[in-house]
Amino acid sequence: MTDITKPPFENILITGAAGALGSVLRDSLRPYAEQLTLSDREPLGDVRANERHFVCDLADRNAVFDMIKGVDIVIHLGGAPRENTFQVILDSNIMGSYNIYEAARQEGVKRVIYASSVHAIGFYECTQTIDANVPQRPDSLYGVSKTFVENLSRYYFDKFGLESVCVRIGSCFPKPIDRRMLATWLSYEDFSHLCIQSIMTPSVGHMIVYGNSNNSANFWDNSQAAYLGYRPKDSADAYRAEVYANTPVGDPRNPAVRFQGGQFAADGHFEDSKTK
Amino acid sequence: MTDITKPPFENILITGAAGALGSVLRDSLRPYAEQLTLSDREPLGDVRANERHFVCDLADRNAVFDMIKGVDIVIHLGGAPRENTFQVILDSNIMGSYNIYEAARQEGVKRVIYASSVHAIGFYECTQTIDANVPQRPDSLYGVSKTFVENLSRYYFDKFGLESVCVRIGSCFPKPIDRRMLATWLSYEDFSHLCIQSIMTPSVGHMIVYGNSNNSANFWDNSQAAYLGYRPKDSADAYRAEVYANTPVGDPRNPAVRFQGGQFAADGHFEDSKTK
Amino acid sequence: MTDITKPPFENILITGAAGALGSVLRDSLRPYAEQLTLSDREPLGDVRANERHFVCDLADRNAVFDMIKGVDIVIHLGGAPRENTFQVILDSNIMGSYNIYEAARQEGVKRVIYASSVHAIGFYECTQTIDANVPQRPDSLYGVSKTFVENLSRYYFDKFGLESVCVRIGSCFPKPIDRRMLATWLSYEDFSHLCIQSIMTPSVGHMIVYGNSNNSANFWDNSQAAYLGYRPKDSADAYRAEVYANTPVGDPRNPAVRFQGGQFAADGHFEDSKTK
Amino acid sequence: MTDITKPPFENILITGAAGALGSVLRDSLRPYAEQLTLSDREPLGDVRANERHFVCDLADRNAVFDMIKGVDIVIHLGGAPRENTFQVILDSNIMGSYNIYEAARQEGVKRVIYASSVHAIGFYECTQTIDANVPQRPDSLYGVSKTFVENLSRYYFDKFGLESVCVRIGSCFPKPIDRRMLATWLSYEDFSHLCIQSIMTPSVGHMIVYGNSNNSANFWDNSQAAYLGYRPKDSADAYRAEVYANTPVGDPRNPAVRFQGGQFAADGHFEDSKTK
Amino acid sequence: MTDITKPPFENILITGAAGALGSVLRDSLRPYAEQLTLSDREPLGDVRANERHFVCDLADRNAVFDMIKGVDIVIHLGGAPRENTFQVILDSNIMGSYNIYEAARQEGVKRVIYASSVHAIGFYECTQTIDANVPQRPDSLYGVSKTFVENLSRYYFDKFGLESVCVRIGSCFPKPIDRRMLATWLSYEDFSHLCIQSIMTPSVGHMIVYGNSNNSANFWDNSQAAYLGYRPKDSADAYRAEVYANTPVGDPRNPAVRFQGGQFAADGHFEDSKTK
Amino acid sequence: MTDITKPPFENILITGAAGALGSVLRDSLRPYAEQLTLSDREPLGDVRANERHFVCDLADRNAVFDMIKGVDIVIHLGGAPRENTFQVILDSNIMGSYNIYEAARQEGVKRVIYASSVHAIGFYECTQTIDANVPQRPDSLYGVSKTFVENLSRYYFDKFGLESVCVRIGSCFPKPIDRRMLATWLSYEDFSHLCIQSIMTPSVGHMIVYGNSNNSANFWDNSQAAYLGYRPKDSADAYRAEVYANTPVGDPRNPAVRFQGGQFAADGHFEDSKTK
Repeated sequence: MTDITKPPFENILITGAAGALGSVLRDSLRPYAEQLTLSDREPLGDVRANERHFVCDLADRNAVFDMIKGVDIVIHLGGAPRENTFQVILDSNIMGSYNIYEAARQEGVKRVIYASSVHAIGFYECTQTIDANVPQRPDSLYGVSKTFVENLSRYYFDKFGLESVCVRIGSCFPKPIDRRMLATWLSYEDFSHLCIQSIMTPSVGHMIVYGNSNNSANFWDNSQAAYLGYRPKDSADAYRAEVYANTPVGDPRNPAVRFQGGQFAADGHFEDSKTK
Repeated sequence: MTDITKPPFENILITGAAGALGSVLRDSLRPYAEQLTLSDREPLGDVRANERHFVCDLADRNAVFDMIKGVDIVIHLGGAPRENTFQVILDSNIMGSYNIYEAARQEGVKRVIYASSVHAIGFYECTQTIDANVPQRPDSLYGVSKTFVENLSRYYFDKFGLESVCVRIGSCFPKPIDRRMLATWLSYEDFSHLCIQSIMTPSVGHMIVYGNSNNSANFWDNSQAAYLGYRPKDSADAYRAEVYANTPVGDPRNPAVRFQGGQFAADGHFEDSKTK
Repeated sequence: MTDITKPPFENILITGAAGALGSVLRDSLRPYAEQLTLSDREPLGDVRANERHFVCDLADRNAVFDMIKGVDIVIHLGGAPRENTFQVILDSNIMGSYNIYEAARQEGVKRVIYASSVHAIGFYECTQTIDANVPQRPDSLYGVSKTFVENLSRYYFDKFGLESVCVRIGSCFPKPIDRRMLATWLSYEDFSHLCIQSIMTPSVGHMIVYGNSNNSANFWDNSQAAYLGYRPKDSADAYRAEVYANTPVGDPRNPAVRFQGGQFAADGHFEDSKTK
Repeated sequence: MTDITKPPFENILITGAAGALGSVLRDSLRPYAEQLTLSDREPLGDVRANERHFVCDLADRNAVFDMIKGVDIVIHLGGAPRENTFQVILDSNIMGSYNIYEAARQEGVKRVIYASSVHAIGFYECTQTIDANVPQRPDSLYGVSKTFVENLSRYYFDKFGLESVCVRIGSCFPKPIDRRMLATWLSYEDFSHLCIQSIMTPSVGHMIVYGNSNNSANFWDNSQAAYLGYRPKDSADAYRAEVYANTPVGDPRNPAVRFQGGQFAADGHFEDSKTK
Repeated sequence: MTDITKPPFENILITGAAGALGSVLRDSLRPYAEQLTLSDREPLGDVRANERHFVCDLADRNAVFDMIKGVDIVIHLGGAPRENTFQVILDSNIMGSYNIYEAARQEGVKRVIYASSVHAIGFYECTQTIDANVPQRPDSLYGVSKTFVENLSRYYFDKFGLESVCVRIGSCFPKPIDRRMLATWLSYEDFSHLCIQSIMTPSVGHMIVYGNSNNSANFWDNSQAAYLGYRPKDSADAYRAEVYANTPVGDPRNPAVRFQGGQFAADGHFEDSKTK
Repeated sequence: MTDITKPPFENILITGAAGALGSVLRDSLRPYAEQLTLSDREPLGDVRANERHFVCDLADRNAVFDMIKGVDIVIHLGGAPRENTFQVILDSNIMGSYNIYEAARQEGVKRVIYASSVHAIGFYECTQTIDANVPQRPDSLYGVSKTFVENLSRYYFDKFGLESVCVRIGSCFPKPIDRRMLATWLSYEDFSHLCIQSIMTPSVGHMIVYGNSNNSANFWDNSQAAYLGYRPKDSADAYRAEVYANTPVGDPRNPAVRFQGGQFAADGHFEDSKTK
């Protein structure tokens, strides 16, 4: 019989904890662990009860190994949050995520929840309904780094049995603010719910799940992650009239309108201005 | 910033506007265009504010080119509404639809919403759940003409970028009146909603969507048109007891019971009585 | 015009009628037939109005032929309900079901609803979302017998036109009592609803449908049986907190946690202790 | 026991018999029928032994009905062989083919072999390997008419049991003369072989098969027509060096290079110059 | 380093060894084992060097356990070779095969090669090209028993790791003698080759492979068993003219012509004459 | 008309040119370019006619940009050729390949042929036949880096139109030397042939192709790259007897026997010995 006076996990690490999504989980995951370990490059404010704070760069291997000791669940949100130079992507997202996975493996972490992104598949057209098994089609170097971690986590599961849920987050903001977000919007509450399902499901293996709310317009078929039991409760539809009133009708030939990645699919290469 | 005092489109043409479905859209699309252009072979009654009327045969190329000038959206409902001689099908549905598409291309129409039909796929069995990518299996010459326009519209998108949504309408009537319609019924309100989603979605490319209400019994998987955000609100289930009381139990070996097209799949060839 | 003062069927036979599921259907199917024929190896209690009772072994061919005379619908629940020796499985499930199908064919039964089981596909992992067309992967000799009857019923439809709906029942109990049942639980009411849809749908051919309630966590994609119009109304989610409180967190490497069949997939062979 | 002194069919009708492909079959099908009926708009030259000639327009219904009497197999090659005005396509390909199918049905023809075309699917990219079940994507009005007849023949099989093999012919010429034909070339001998297999296979239902030779480069997966036993013996590879020497390297962004339909996919609309 | 003076296996058991296929393997497998164990209900003739003979009924559990001791590979050909009463099928094919698998598991056999049949999928139409993952569609009680053993062997692999290759044999005879066999014929040499590949491939898990020769006409896609490296060398095509001369043209509406199972799919139920 | 006295390309860059595969292409690609640019970290020996040599580290951005000027085709073989520490993988394979692609884009290279590997999908089982669209399943950090470049090249095509062919090379050696290589072996001649097809095909977009010879045993379905016209001429079968004689029978439960990646899938993590 489980001791129901105790939370189900001992220590949940949240990386990128100072960001908007990290702040959301800092509250909502509190009942699920005896201790929360929070990590970010930026200061995390006051240390609340049952929290540990680490201000560090994930590219610093020793720092990552230190903070992961005793952790049983990792929620990995840290890294560059949008397109950047390849060097920044390499350090923050590729090296940083490798350190997380290698430390998790060596320290016996049970499961990692990874904040992947729509930009891992941003070059599919909005009119294509895709599931989690389609070949990745990143729309940016940022998106390429997301596919890197998805594949790295697959490797850690196949070889070492370290479970992962990779959540391809659409647009996680307080509310949808353009017409594309009528499909991609993920409310903060639904994001929390999805993370909680991801840690509470008995067996997840290696799974990829799309993260958007219960929006009428949708690009994604989440049926392959049905065992997670994710049932979003919010909907971008509540903001439809407001979005229509505030945003222009797009041209369907514009890549930002045509592709799931939106503006990321339309932007020139980040380093164009720097080279040649 | 969009001028929210203006409707999103300048001029929407509805062909077949004198029919039941045309009448429904004549009301529900009013807020979406500054002007409605209505066309039919039959008189359309009084001209309401912001309407233009054209009484013409769609097989008349010049008439079609005249009325399409200045139109940005076409809702193409016109043509023979059920099985007929091949000559009638040829003139009304094949030649008529070609004229609509060719005029739309030359006059710069943005998008066509085409009233296709269950009869484009009416020879699938009721027990088969099909999506929009299955090979067409028409159940009548009428159904063959529906597949013709679906393919013609695909061509106009692939070569000229003219967008289309082809709606395979089930049974669009005030209420379901036989057991098959418990699956195929499309309420007038849901039909309006589907048309509005089809014109308001930023990018549709060439899309095929099934048109039925939120009926428990269903043949169709609309997931490939998920970006349209179509969420029917009515359901044939409300009429289930009434239908059971008024209609006999069918024999599953009867083609009208076995196939999605119902009676169309069972009927002998329209011209049987005329030839030989 | 149907005589609405009469139920739609003349005589529904329920095998295994003394069990929990049989008792449920004994009540809920009453309005659908003029007479219920109930069969079990155990006594069935008082004979209610419009009931016929047969206490017999389904392996007894003559007894099966006797009781099936005049029946138009069979709900076949009878047989060994869990793993057993091969001889018991052979007699109760294989021979017994053959007798039911052969008698149904010879006596002109219209349709059989067969109680198949999750154990016909119990060796798929919980993280796999499967539809009804995946190859069978039984988790026990009991499960192998379920696949036998599924294939036998396919044969009777393909060759003789005898229709069947095979319901792969998850966990049909008063409420879910372990973490796996949060996905597999089927309430008694939803089970009744599914059986009623299975007999009232005009044409079913040979169909396989998964039987669970409207649980957030799910392994199964029922879209191929959409024509049945099965819409479960209960959900294991209502019992989630209770289940979490009363059951331990499982190890995802344990076959009972990892596979859809649960403990059946983990158990050693039933006859291990008896042989050698 | 079959009388082996007799050919397997009584009367094979070849439409479009004066063209290059018709001439090929006029020779190769001779042993397969007691009589060949040849039809074309152009004169067919001397009448050889066991031949009947009809010079007629397929849009002439009575003429078609006359010549099809007594025929058991139709090889339907007739109609406009490339892009044209819609009126020509409508008369020659749509009306003409309807007359063929309707006459075949009424006169009890056993099977029709229809010369469809790569242009029925010409808007797939060369880098896509497609089978016969992909949605049609015509590259021209000519191609749209080919999809019309494919669907018309599907209807005649589903409703009346009239069997058809639709052969999507690539480039049937004496030899490949551009780089695209290294994939699409169909030799005359292989074309004959494919037609012979199509008439000799015991059961074909409604089948679509791609028609190209055994070329190393290929767009098409013919596995769905495996029962035809089509095994091409020629290969465009024998002409590869010659083609490379005589043709320029194409630009992969040119539609004529990028799409399976080649130049048809690149050409502006046939009627562009005529209208407006 | 392997001792190349020794055959790769110690003891191969062939059941049904007195039949035509058993006789073929008795010769061709000789180099692959130090000892051959041969079993049949009929006498097996003279005992050759390195052979053991068992004349027994496979339904006799003790006899099966006795003869399987020391065996590392089983080639299971034994059982009723065609349609029969259900009781015969039950004893010979279902009980007999269970005994083989259960004995194999308990005695540590490495791998079983099972002679399944086209009749496990005989109700697919000849015009359908199927792979090994399609749902089984048996054409007879015999075919149902073949699907039983396929599923039983899947269970023994999933739960106990006992590997199996199930060979769906088409028509294994000296030469093809009817038009259907132009697709289904499997020469004796190709059968031997397929069995040898099945035992020599390093890892087979649970695999289903179709067994026919390199015939131009074909129903089956063997790509899912590509690792076996089966490349048939014979072809029914060599007998095509002979078959055409000796057999009539079939009617495509005859089930024996239309379905892959041929006459099995057309025959009435074996027990029709016995019952009622 | 093409000038047939000139090779089709101006300047082909081969990275990793000092290795075995580079040496093969150095000879075979000579007729296809006016100049070969060869790059490696190791000296490349004598400079032959029409060659340019660069000894450099691909992680050196400036060196890569220098040598790529004037190149129209890149054959990218360079980088760490097997498992290594993550730092080596990061520098040699990830940073190095990024430099190649970014330089190719900026300098207007037409097409890149990338030497990917079986280790990008090494965790599929040998018994699974996979095509190029399955999700990647790398078996090592080396394999993860291969998936990184596959996705990076997809991004460069989707956003910038830079074409790539990614060749998942099996085992490219003088001859197969273990049982797994009976499936994965790629002869030097077939490798050259595949590279030549990859540069000569008019349009390749972004394509993934498996690289093995015409071996009877096979894991891979190359049909999605059919347009390349790759037809291997060698076969591992010629070495089968030799391999059997020299290598032991494997245990199918050993990951090195069970998985497509062979020993890479079985090896512990490269850095295991260094950490903790």
